[in-house]
Amino acid sequence: MDLKLRRAVKNDMGSVLQLIKELAIFEQEPDAVKITEEDLINDGFGNTPSFIVFVAELDKKIVGIALFYQRYSTWKGKSIHLEDLIVRKKYRGKGIGNKLYAMVLNYAYENNFKRVAWEVLDWNTVAIDFYESTGATVFKDWRVAQIDEDALKKFVLSKS
Amino acid sequence: MDLKLRRAVKNDMGSVLQLIKELAIFEQEPDAVKITEEDLINDGFGNTPSFIVFVAELDKKIVGIALFYQRYSTWKGKSIHLEDLIVRKKYRGKGIGNKLYAMVLNYAYENNFKRVAWEVLDWNTVAIDFYESTGATVFKDWRVAQIDEDALKKFVLSKS
Repeated sequence: MDLKLRRAVKNDMGSVLQLIKELAIFEQEPDAVKITEEDLINDGFGNTPSFIVFVAELDKKIVGIALFYQRYSTWKGKSIHLEDLIVRKKYRGKGIGNKLYAMVLNYAYENNFKRVAWEVLDWNTVAIDFYESTGATVFKDWRVAQIDEDALKKFVLSKS
Repeated sequence: MDLKLRRAVKNDMGSVLQLIKELAIFEQEPDAVKITEEDLINDGFGNTPSFIVFVAELDKKIVGIALFYQRYSTWKGKSIHLEDLIVRKKYRGKGIGNKLYAMVLNYAYENNFKRVAWEVLDWNTVAIDFYESTGATVFKDWRVAQIDEDALKKFVLSKS
């Protein structure tokens, strides 16, 4: 197979959005994706890009993506957050996800980032086993908290 | 009490680092803080700042901080991550943490961010109850994964 991994360009954002949407459908949240191709182009390719995407291209078709951005640890300094690592369902089991993951870790190392972080579902033991085999730690006692747009608005307006 | 909340300036970074270190000592990881005052100044006040800090000043002394930065949701767009919300131990219970939290949420709302996220320890039920009372969701099934600097190096060098 002719697999090529490379950094995404603006023109790829349509395909990238398609993969994001496929994952949302798989997670039974098809309406949760509010972002558009234009948003991805504006946010990812301006003067201060909000993220970087690596794509896996198989026979010139994008079949996988890794989307990441900078975070900041007050203990270690600049770090990377791997937001999405997606491989289209029928292209899984070929090591494409592993290659994208390794590419992000390599980028982090080469650019002197002090840590790479991401989130994983606790029942996804296959993924957890893989991550741990690469030297990552999956923390049992930390919980992810979020306040979404509607709740944020409600909170802020209730205080003003 | 003369409490003032404001955005931090370079000169505050010494006090900010002190609070970060106090928390690390409390968490029994005094040696985990690798970052220096100079790092905080360089990373927080350059052309593309890696974070923003709000400080709570009581009688001209910094007693609390909220440190946050931008993240990116592939469903919602630009979001905020609240990395640290710290109030010095003897100044807790006066609502200072709540005020800093509200200030960050207000900033997110005013600047059109689509979400605010953070992490909380699962045994910290007081914090979790507070967050939920503000409209936030604490997810039970997501786990935080990280690969630290040493493991990152080991992984990358093993592949090269």
